[in-house]
Amino acid sequence: MMRLTYANGKDEYELLGQLRDRGEAVDKKVSEAVAGIIGDVRARGDEALREYTARFDGYCPEDLEVSRDEINDALSSADPEYVQALLSAQENITEFHTRQKHQSFVDMKANGVILGQRVRGLHRVGLYVPGGTAAYPSSVLMNAIPAKIAGVGEIVMVTPPGRDGKPNPDILLAAAICGVDRVFLVGGAQAVAALAFGTGTVPRVDKIVGPGNIYVATAKKLLYGTVDIDMIAGPSEILVMADRSANPRYLAADLLSQAEHDPLASAILLTTDEEIARETIAELGRQKAALSREAIIDQSLSGYGAAIVCRSCSEMVELANLIAPEHLEVVCENPMEYVGKLDNAGSIFLGQYAPEPLGDYFAGPNHVLPTSGTARFFSPLSVDSFVKRSSFIYYTREALEEAKEDIVRIANSEGLSAHANSITVRFDEQAL
Amino acid sequence: MMRLTYANGKDEYELLGQLRDRGEAVDKKVSEAVAGIIGDVRARGDEALREYTARFDGYCPEDLEVSRDEINDALSSADPEYVQALLSAQENITEFHTRQKHQSFVDMKANGVILGQRVRGLHRVGLYVPGGTAAYPSSVLMNAIPAKIAGVGEIVMVTPPGRDGKPNPDILLAAAICGVDRVFLVGGAQAVAALAFGTGTVPRVDKIVGPGNIYVATAKKLLYGTVDIDMIAGPSEILVMADRSANPRYLAADLLSQAEHDPLASAILLTTDEEIARETIAELGRQKAALSREAIIDQSLSGYGAAIVCRSCSEMVELANLIAPEHLEVVCENPMEYVGKLDNAGSIFLGQYAPEPLGDYFAGPNHVLPTSGTARFFSPLSVDSFVKRSSFIYYTREALEEAKEDIVRIANSEGLSAHANSITVRFDEQAL
Repeated sequence: MMRLTYANGKDEYELLGQLRDRGEAVDKKVSEAVAGIIGDVRARGDEALREYTARFDGYCPEDLEVSRDEINDALSSADPEYVQALLSAQENITEFHTRQKHQSFVDMKANGVILGQRVRGLHRVGLYVPGGTAAYPSSVLMNAIPAKIAGVGEIVMVTPPGRDGKPNPDILLAAAICGVDRVFLVGGAQAVAALAFGTGTVPRVDKIVGPGNIYVATAKKLLYGTVDIDMIAGPSEILVMADRSANPRYLAADLLSQAEHDPLASAILLTTDEEIARETIAELGRQKAALSREAIIDQSLSGYGAAIVCRSCSEMVELANLIAPEHLEVVCENPMEYVGKLDNAGSIFLGQYAPEPLGDYFAGPNHVLPTSGTARFFSPLSVDSFVKRSSFIYYTREALEEAKEDIVRIANSEGLSAHANSITVRFDEQAL
Repeated sequence: MMRLTYANGKDEYELLGQLRDRGEAVDKKVSEAVAGIIGDVRARGDEALREYTARFDGYCPEDLEVSRDEINDALSSADPEYVQALLSAQENITEFHTRQKHQSFVDMKANGVILGQRVRGLHRVGLYVPGGTAAYPSSVLMNAIPAKIAGVGEIVMVTPPGRDGKPNPDILLAAAICGVDRVFLVGGAQAVAALAFGTGTVPRVDKIVGPGNIYVATAKKLLYGTVDIDMIAGPSEILVMADRSANPRYLAADLLSQAEHDPLASAILLTTDEEIARETIAELGRQKAALSREAIIDQSLSGYGAAIVCRSCSEMVELANLIAPEHLEVVCENPMEYVGKLDNAGSIFLGQYAPEPLGDYFAGPNHVLPTSGTARFFSPLSVDSFVKRSSFIYYTREALEEAKEDIVRIANSEGLSAHANSITVRFDEQAL
């Protein structure tokens, strides 16, 4: 069960070390195996892709691509209430992410100089969706919707075939709702390699997003640079800050919702009220018995869970900034006044009625968030994740002539005479 | 000297392969050496940092930090005309990058729901500046100015000591102009590791930017995730598109300005006019003799240079999009109409009077650009490179109740009953 400790400036650092180490695990054997698969798919294309699919998924479909009819069927045969739930989520996610979209800009100066930045969607993006019990339709929404808003030309989904050789119907449904363009029944490192290089069947993409197991994550890491990737996601985390106004039943439920993800998931409570800490721990025991993933919950709470009693709200804030959690709940009076103090968090949930699953599925902001303390410098997945920018410069002869002396001076200070020459050659018809 | 070829859909692919391979070189020996240095600096801090500095730079200053007086002296003792040149560049760079800055946003709905995205500068950023002949003051401007505009709290520069144990005065001058907060006389992989973990002397940073040799680049790559990095820069590139309106003297000068950077640098001319190709090649021979880095120019032009005669403007555009160059000059009539067609380029230079060095030093857009074809998915360094974002969500009881059914439905479809419980527990006082 979850431990109870008191903030003392020492135990928290130890806990922090434990959390960081979860994200840092690098398995040399996995790296070597994945590098082999990547090299093989690069060299032999579809032949290698089919061999690995048969070997790892137990079955390789004759046609690796899911037909448009099958995708449309997923939509027409689904439970209408479930479709409506996904459509409502889609509407909220679309509305929030549309606010993130940035325009190209241009500065046209009176002297004829034009400077600008063009922003446009990536040409083609690959979306990895795991199979089995980790097949989450919400992941499809959270990745595909910002890509669409960014103006991505084509979204290509890959997902491993199930044991029946078919795709997960909920995943196909989500793909149909979001307007995913093509779906291929391949998974693992071989699917990532196929997207990075292209094969006869699978088209090459510019960026690969979406969660996956250690093989998928390692393949993405190794191929970063050949292709862009979203981020290397570590195990999930929640940090809950609560003062005496909080309801321990709600706190426990929210901590459990994170703990059920994964034995390595982390759920931590910071509170200024020791009684709240004790009651929340008691509630955890009561509520978890009724949940479907109790064994996973027990492992994650005992391994990476803690209730830490703090001396003040500012100590809670300090610890939260130190931990830099993926999800941060502020269950305190006047929660809004904390936002400006919280420097490191992926997504912040404010008040009694913003449980973390609201953000996972429905509210609008993205659920693909930085983990393992990387909220110090990484940001949630966004429309910006799916665009590229180019700057452009137009100068007139007169404007360049005015800048000539300065540019030549800097070029010469750097010892780059050909840089200086490219300016002067335009004004000295006798030169060289 | 530069080769002359004709676009035929085959040679260009071969050339493309050669360009890509330059950026892909991974040296296993270097990786192992760098991993050793990183581990050592992490474990032993300043002690290891001093040992490596003495070993690799031949001298370890007693005080690793450059004093504020010394930085101020660099400004007061510099050539006033040179200072003015840097200040003019700073003004243009500041003006352009200020347009990139994005605000936090908030959506406050009529039902009391609040959704938002907070944007703020990173807490502390490390800026690597190489020593020796690759010490470029312009790099300091291009990295430090967007960081300042982003609201970065502290900029920490590291640069190796020169043979006299002192920093390069032009680098210190640029640091003073840009408001760099602290400067340390360390370089190489050991400096990158010190910034990533912090030592007794060097503070830990959230992101490391700036160019460096293979040891620096490898250290950044290995530490990505522990700290954020800008990008792994490959050798520099220019692609020039020219129609018959172009002046071969100017074209040659611009190609040379890129070729002088590095024996691996690439300078390619695409033109619809064979005569222009031939005259440009003749001009290259004429102009290079007067330049200071002729040996480097010869290597890069013969290794990675080419003049490719195309059958049409649209063939030039197609090839440019395929090559995805770092720098792209459009020296054609009506250059502006090409911008919307050019999908993959770091920075685009339009017309006869926008030579690439204008962008390196002066015009305003950033000169830190994606190389080796990565303009397909990467973007120039920008203010966005120095911010982090958090989303936030506030819901009322009524709004959550309205969303309840949808969220529970999605959670259950994903088999996550604790997610569903975190919603229902708030509305069913009897539950569990």
